[in-house]
Amino acid sequence: MLDNYTSSLTSAHKKFLEKLFPGGVAFDPEVLRVYASDASLKVGTVLAVVRPENSDQVCEFMRWAETENIAVHTRGRGTSLSGGCVPTIPGIVISMLGMDKILNISRDDFVAEVEPGVSTAQLQEECEKLGMLYPPDPASAKATSVGGNVATCAGGLRAVKYGVTRDYVIGVEAVLPGGKLLRFGGRTHKDVIGLDIGRLFVGSEGTLGVITKLTLKLIPKPEASASVLVGYASLDAALASMGKVFAAGILPCAVEFMNETVLEILTKTSEVPWPDTVKSLLLFQVDGSNDTVPFENARLSHQLHDALWRMEGVGKDEEDKIWAYRRRVSAASYVLGPDRIGGDMAVPRGSILSAVRRFEKIAASNGKRLVAFGHAGDGNIHANLHYDASDPDDARRTEKTHHELDAAALEFGGSLSGEHGAGYLKDVSKQLGKDEHALMRGIRRVFDPKGILNPGKGY
Amino acid sequence: MLDNYTSSLTSAHKKFLEKLFPGGVAFDPEVLRVYASDASLKVGTVLAVVRPENSDQVCEFMRWAETENIAVHTRGRGTSLSGGCVPTIPGIVISMLGMDKILNISRDDFVAEVEPGVSTAQLQEECEKLGMLYPPDPASAKATSVGGNVATCAGGLRAVKYGVTRDYVIGVEAVLPGGKLLRFGGRTHKDVIGLDIGRLFVGSEGTLGVITKLTLKLIPKPEASASVLVGYASLDAALASMGKVFAAGILPCAVEFMNETVLEILTKTSEVPWPDTVKSLLLFQVDGSNDTVPFENARLSHQLHDALWRMEGVGKDEEDKIWAYRRRVSAASYVLGPDRIGGDMAVPRGSILSAVRRFEKIAASNGKRLVAFGHAGDGNIHANLHYDASDPDDARRTEKTHHELDAAALEFGGSLSGEHGAGYLKDVSKQLGKDEHALMRGIRRVFDPKGILNPGKGY
Ligand SMILES: Cc1cc2nc3c(=O)[nH]c(=O)nc-3n(C[C@H](O)[C@H](O)[C@H](O)COP(=O)(O)OP(=O)(O)OC[C@H]3O[C@@H](n4cnc5c(N)ncnc54)[C@H](O)[C@@H]3O)c2cc1C
Ligand SMILES: Cc1cc2nc3c(=O)[nH]c(=O)nc-3n(C[C@H](O)[C@H](O)[C@H](O)COP(=O)(O)OP(=O)(O)OC[C@H]3O[C@@H](n4cnc5c(N)ncnc54)[C@H](O)[C@@H]3O)c2cc1C
Repeated sequence: MLDNYTSSLTSAHKKFLEKLFPGGVAFDPEVLRVYASDASLKVGTVLAVVRPENSDQVCEFMRWAETENIAVHTRGRGTSLSGGCVPTIPGIVISMLGMDKILNISRDDFVAEVEPGVSTAQLQEECEKLGMLYPPDPASAKATSVGGNVATCAGGLRAVKYGVTRDYVIGVEAVLPGGKLLRFGGRTHKDVIGLDIGRLFVGSEGTLGVITKLTLKLIPKPEASASVLVGYASLDAALASMGKVFAAGILPCAVEFMNETVLEILTKTSEVPWPDTVKSLLLFQVDGSNDTVPFENARLSHQLHDALWRMEGVGKDEEDKIWAYRRRVSAASYVLGPDRIGGDMAVPRGSILSAVRRFEKIAASNGKRLVAFGHAGDGNIHANLHYDASDPDDARRTEKTHHELDAAALEFGGSLSGEHGAGYLKDVSKQLGKDEHALMRGIRRVFDPKGILNPGKGY
Repeated sequence: MLDNYTSSLTSAHKKFLEKLFPGGVAFDPEVLRVYASDASLKVGTVLAVVRPENSDQVCEFMRWAETENIAVHTRGRGTSLSGGCVPTIPGIVISMLGMDKILNISRDDFVAEVEPGVSTAQLQEECEKLGMLYPPDPASAKATSVGGNVATCAGGLRAVKYGVTRDYVIGVEAVLPGGKLLRFGGRTHKDVIGLDIGRLFVGSEGTLGVITKLTLKLIPKPEASASVLVGYASLDAALASMGKVFAAGILPCAVEFMNETVLEILTKTSEVPWPDTVKSLLLFQVDGSNDTVPFENARLSHQLHDALWRMEGVGKDEEDKIWAYRRRVSAASYVLGPDRIGGDMAVPRGSILSAVRRFEKIAASNGKRLVAFGHAGDGNIHANLHYDASDPDDARRTEKTHHELDAAALEFGGSLSGEHGAGYLKDVSKQLGKDEHALMRGIRRVFDPKGILNPGKGY
């Protein structure tokens, strides 16, 4: 691993980059500032931004970067919430948005081949036009790249039934430091020859190589879906209902929850259709064929008979209206403070209620409120804290709460992150054993002996 | 990597083993012979068999084995078809069948924790008793261990809808050469902190560590299922129907196919219910709730209107009768010869027909018949050749055909194995690029610097 990365570019460096990326390189501080940050709002130092249009350029660039000891930070759409794209060690940002083509979508193979910069929502749409579904569906899908989704193993709303990004990656092409282009897997849905390196790239947060092509598995698009938003007197009552749904053998494609604080916020910031007695919500979606969805919906409703209130919707338009309440949570929460620290811990599914209650207590003991919602079906809790950064005491208490929540999640046998990744904001050593962590770093060195790829990030 | 493994045990070695595994070690040649082979029927050399009952013993053993330069071959139930358990380099076999406990199955977390030696079928049953499903379902489930399934990433009949073993492994505990016990993942369904090493163990064929505990994700058990066996005039017609099923948005849990040779064999060896005009079969299964399965079944039937013949069954008893035809294939094929070389190549799903036709031609050009059946939904072809080992010319032609089939599978962008793994019988260098292969070996060395784990196997 390097001790010293090149910390400024010489004119020879700049000439090299200008020649390799004609019209696709920037040194202008105004431009660099944009690439110095991501959705975490943290800021690093960018020496240059390059934007390859093909993998040959990536190979040549990576050969050069390794020789020149330059840190390389790969970037998709920069929606990382954990600072995954922030150059904490000054380096060159390689933006993959110049490689954003859908290469092919095959109805025969149920496979899509794409460049990493393709928009997730666009890929979803193109697949759906052909009667197929690319299931990974992060809430940020309209703003993310598929490469970024793969590098973070993005989850999403449908994960409880359809799994996460990992479950759909069957082929990965990536360029390693030194400039070699490697290919793992391909268009076959199954392949057990050799170690499963393609999937090791999933969730590797830009530390193993620059992904230049992806082969993705598709499934038939379900004909129909239905959603139901159900209200309870407490989160306890809500999660008890969820337990009954799974116990009845129902596998919804989405199960979201919102705690009492979320409902307070929604009520405070807009008209809401539920009565005052409703203090917590669950949101379910089921899918299937036109014939089967009404039955699935009826079975689901049957298990939800305890609910105080419900709002049902069949088909995209009606469902969108229901989902709007869930989508509003993030923005509405800013009534609690103009700044935010977010958590996305995962705990064993049966521990969600105890975990949220514990988190709330920790928050209260620091004089904070906990905004808790998320993917109840996966045990994945969005635990957000709002504060006012201009109030040092508030900022300190919030930071303290945040760390205590992480520690509590681990006590439940949980993970510091179910979706967003470690980036550089999570202290992974709290979760990973010493030997396990050392082994991961050993593997990283096999890909990247000098440690030029996204240094300071991941693990 | 070692050049010289210890090739015979001293009395000090034996004493050490007897002390560490009281009543759980064997040196008797009669016993060793059993452990020298697996379902591939190839034979290696076993120096001793040990049978740990807890992970402490495994740690102590692995510490010692590395110091003593002894090759270690981990073994589950020995049903590997690719020689994955055969000690081609003489060594000690560590049988995991002494660690066969189901530690817990949780209805709250939808998680099972098991020791690796547990029987797959037993785990499935225990989960089903609690209303949950452990979906991986290799045809060999009654005879395999879950640890062996994980080490090979076993597929199975339900893979088209539910995926393979990999998709259900959320926690792995393993002991590495040197004796360290490491833990990756846990009981959370989602976890994106650090590299996904737990899943790297899946399909690693005993080369990275001895798996001592597994945490598995479960799903709600579907209430009902239905199967249909449909007959066509040719494999071409059969696979055209399959295409229509997927295009209609139906995702069956199983889609199996059988080529013309298979039907000849079935007809020759027993009474069959289909008319002479039927030359190829498809077998579908759909599942869901009691209410939805009839509709799914009707939708499926609608897409299969081209079929010449069909046999339908709802519920386990009726379905078992239908599946019996599929299960009979393997045994019945021995009418073509007392010995067998099997292939389990995977190709992109849309290429199955061309691949099977190509394989048949290759077989014919060598004077052989091709028994082709398998998981059409996954593009996974069981391509078996029968011969008489006592006839050298037959054996030679069969071996030649087998290699030509492997090469042809790769030409279709396929894999040498969709399920059974490389073991030592597959020449993985035909499929893996040189750099990709070298990288895999580099990773292996991070786990096992001396190369004592299952040497000569995998990649
Ligand atoms: C409003 C909002 C909602 C969100 N909702 C979800 C959600 O529901 N589920 C979820 O999982 N996440 C969610 N996220 C987090 C974020 O959107 C995801 O992590 C997403 O996958 C990032 O995609 P991106 O293209 O923006 O990647 P970036 O942020 O650009 O990069 C993320 C990481 O991937 C690496 N990377 C990117 N491209 C490549 C490549 N080609 N090769 C190698 N490494 C690469 C980067 O180095 C970085 O480490 C949300 C974020 C926001 C802001
Ligand atoms: C009739 C028949 C039908 C089959 N059908 C299928 C099928 O439908 N789908 C399918 O995928 N396979 C199938 N197989 C192949 C075989 O059953 C699978 O590979 C199975 O997963 C092996 O399980 P096992 O316990 O017998 O493992 P073994 O054969 O004992 O071992 C297999 C590999 O796993 C390693 N291993 C075993 N346990 C451990 C451990 N605890 N830690 C580390 N490494 C370990 C071994 O070293 C070896 O490399 C079939 C085999 C037969 C004989």
